[in-house]
Amino acid sequence: MKDVVSDCAIESVMRVLSGRWPTLLLYYLKDGTKRFSELRRDNPTVSHRMLALELRKLEAAGIVRRIDHEGYPRRVDYQLTPAGLRLVPLIDALGDWWEEVEQGGRDVEVLPRVA
Amino acid sequence: MKDVVSDCAIESVMRVLSGRWPTLLLYYLKDGTKRFSELRRDNPTVSHRMLALELRKLEAAGIVRRIDHEGYPRRVDYQLTPAGLRLVPLIDALGDWWEEVEQGGRDVEVLPRVA
Repeated sequence: MKDVVSDCAIESVMRVLSGRWPTLLLYYLKDGTKRFSELRRDNPTVSHRMLALELRKLEAAGIVRRIDHEGYPRRVDYQLTPAGLRLVPLIDALGDWWEEVEQGGRDVEVLPRVA
Repeated sequence: MKDVVSDCAIESVMRVLSGRWPTLLLYYLKDGTKRFSELRRDNPTVSHRMLALELRKLEAAGIVRRIDHEGYPRRVDYQLTPAGLRLVPLIDALGDWWEEVEQGGRDVEVLPRVA
């Protein structure tokens, strides 16, 4: 939030991460490669179509890599890219911040006003 | 992303921060108190109603404090709470991460597979 460039970057990040599934998928992929079918089992409330769309969005953003194995039966794996792995602790920090806020009873005291 | 509790926290954070406006408003409020009318000027494409709704959501989450001054003409100020101020560098880190990803040409090399 230092300048306009950074502001644009934040808008772009939020376009990719907004919604329920992107951060959940990051969570389920953080320990290694998973098949599409495993991700569906991890997220039983997501439809096949929605999961495919969300994974494609993360792939386009450079967060997830899709590996289509040749052969039959067809197998498609997903894993985090190095950029995706670097994103994990940043999202963790947001979760920690939220837990602090919840525990602190949503502190409402304010800083001294500057003018 | 350490356990289920943290996972829930992340879902909660994303519910609050998802979309275009929450992080933009954080950006516009990070340097101090602003009036509602100033925030509208900062974000000319947001409607009065949408801005009010977004600010109310941030207020309910303990990120923004609303100060309704007595008197006429009525003046309503908004400022970040201490929790909101602590959120700013975390969102900045996401913006920095995005810029790195963009500059790195979306690295797609992967870590060795764990099996």
